[in-house]
Amino acid sequence: MFRNRSFLTAIRRYSTRRMTQEIDLGITADMHVHLRDGKMMELVTPTVREGGISIAYIMPNLVPPITKLDKVIEYKQDLEKLAPKTTFLMTFYLSEELTPELIREAALKKAIHGVKCYPAGVTTNSSAGVNPNDFSKFYPVFKAMEENNIVLNLHGEKPSVKGDHEDIHVMNAEPKFLPALEKLHKDFPGLKIVLEHCTTKEAVDLVEKINSERKEGEEVKVAATITAHHLFLTVDSWAGNPINFCKPVAKFPADRRSLVAAATSGKPYFFFGSDSAPHPVHNKARHTGVCAGVYTQSHAIPYLAQVFESQNKLENLHSFVNSGKTFYGIRDEDAKSSDRCVLVKKQSVVPEYITAEGCDQVVPFRAGESLDWSIEWK
Amino acid sequence: MFRNRSFLTAIRRYSTRRMTQEIDLGITADMHVHLRDGKMMELVTPTVREGGISIAYIMPNLVPPITKLDKVIEYKQDLEKLAPKTTFLMTFYLSEELTPELIREAALKKAIHGVKCYPAGVTTNSSAGVNPNDFSKFYPVFKAMEENNIVLNLHGEKPSVKGDHEDIHVMNAEPKFLPALEKLHKDFPGLKIVLEHCTTKEAVDLVEKINSERKEGEEVKVAATITAHHLFLTVDSWAGNPINFCKPVAKFPADRRSLVAAATSGKPYFFFGSDSAPHPVHNKARHTGVCAGVYTQSHAIPYLAQVFESQNKLENLHSFVNSGKTFYGIRDEDAKSSDRCVLVKKQSVVPEYITAEGCDQVVPFRAGESLDWSIEWK
Repeated sequence: MFRNRSFLTAIRRYSTRRMTQEIDLGITADMHVHLRDGKMMELVTPTVREGGISIAYIMPNLVPPITKLDKVIEYKQDLEKLAPKTTFLMTFYLSEELTPELIREAALKKAIHGVKCYPAGVTTNSSAGVNPNDFSKFYPVFKAMEENNIVLNLHGEKPSVKGDHEDIHVMNAEPKFLPALEKLHKDFPGLKIVLEHCTTKEAVDLVEKINSERKEGEEVKVAATITAHHLFLTVDSWAGNPINFCKPVAKFPADRRSLVAAATSGKPYFFFGSDSAPHPVHNKARHTGVCAGVYTQSHAIPYLAQVFESQNKLENLHSFVNSGKTFYGIRDEDAKSSDRCVLVKKQSVVPEYITAEGCDQVVPFRAGESLDWSIEWK
Repeated sequence: MFRNRSFLTAIRRYSTRRMTQEIDLGITADMHVHLRDGKMMELVTPTVREGGISIAYIMPNLVPPITKLDKVIEYKQDLEKLAPKTTFLMTFYLSEELTPELIREAALKKAIHGVKCYPAGVTTNSSAGVNPNDFSKFYPVFKAMEENNIVLNLHGEKPSVKGDHEDIHVMNAEPKFLPALEKLHKDFPGLKIVLEHCTTKEAVDLVEKINSERKEGEEVKVAATITAHHLFLTVDSWAGNPINFCKPVAKFPADRRSLVAAATSGKPYFFFGSDSAPHPVHNKARHTGVCAGVYTQSHAIPYLAQVFESQNKLENLHSFVNSGKTFYGIRDEDAKSSDRCVLVKKQSVVPEYITAEGCDQVVPFRAGESLDWSIEWK
């Protein structure tokens, strides 16, 4: 009996796939994007749309980091000039320069949608970050964020330490951070928090647990973004391949399976944040000090489609690339363009690199490989 | 009372250290050395002696691998021409070309001291290696090795697999191999086996357990080599630093502590095998396909001294660099030179790279850093 039902389900899925040569993904959102500045910004900003993304949530870790109103407005204008049809949602970098007053003013002017918290020293341009063992000095800022519906975006890693009592290293830095996330949610139950680019089964399980405790009808307060590349990579993928090295690092096969299950689940508290993070190839092809980050922007949706199709879950891709808007309270009408992203079953090839005059080459994720899907704007 | 005794011990150690400005390490042995061929061989072979090593046990993973008597004899002669005072102990590469007859002939002629087993595909030049899930086809060869006192050198890693039932990846590849080591020891109790470059607490614990079951007076049958670099490195060290990427990869801080405790213990079944594995820097500074291996040969003993001193265990360094000879049945009189390696408390600086005409640069471990010890030959 059970076997028969499985068989019928399989047949149904297969039929759905056969017919699904085009899928309307609507006004898509990537809730974690690095567009840099200068020549690199000019190169990668137009690729947000090329990769099938309409709304992009922009990280503030420039050098120096973005902590001022005029700077975030200016940065947004620069990006809009480069990609007029893309909608950019902006963020501040959590630092001691932020005040409750500044949060209130930025919220009133709709200049930012969130504040990104980087633990000091864990990833690219995070040296100005905070001590994740004690957030208490930022509680007045968090309070102002809670009151003004500004989202807290957490890079959820503890910095590495070696000790006889507690070892923290790249492989457990995220699980070690999770109690801090739980405490923040407890202390600010009305604050919207995103655990960014989550990479472990422990993180997925915690976000599930928190949401299972939500009362019926209550909106999601704690969510997690998942990247495209972490749906593919494990620790073996970056051992000896700096192009796949990012922070948080890709973990074990069981973690990857957990991420794939979460991303393809259709649940509104797991949504897409590519963490696409371009670096010039000469900062990747180094024998020491390789920059952390994987560039996926130009093929963001086709990478995802590959994974969702492998799981027979293409029907949930729409949710994965739309739920972020709901969480942030963004309506389709807020987007600068009403163009809809349509996934098309047509092979696309990831180029060996992308570049422009005066800009170093950037090697994309899975460079040179074929993907089964492309996107079109309609 | 306890505190007083600790204090006295500390004072005694301090006094010993103050006096120990020179330590006679005798005829030192490095039981796991890669000297390559061609120009690279010319560059690195003389550095065995520079690093404080008298006797070097040479790996056979050239391209093609060494599986023939004439080839191993010729290779040894080439090495001796480059370093006349260094003693080279040679090995075959375990493959289907080896026969019990060849083992017997090679043993009779003292052409080899061991046979190195590489699981296919786990490290540099291991594509000709064996399937570590089934050694049975090599049992006639192992029998001949057991009878002729030829050592089996195991690269103790299972190749990576991803599966719902068993995941094998770079971080657990060694523990997953350990049952195979136990089975080989059970099936060939007289065969001497070395678990090469062990990197995990699990491996250390197994070698301890096997030796704890040894009858009094019985010689060591199962030993492990430990490298210099694995006494320093953890997973964090190679994340983003291809120069520290090697196979097996460095593991967690607790594993490193276990290796340091084993290496500095003075126990005869943990001895030095540097696994010094030079690669041209252009094969390290790559964004994909980085070669696995850390080059430590030129400063092998000073690196070790740094660790042993940090543990107040300099008195056990002699054992660590001499016990390999006992295990292999090598006497000091067998060495080509009677020069003794003396450790001297004198700073040495690791160069940024080593090179020679027509040879690519090789970047040593901890390039540019100062070490507290040097070596002299007396």
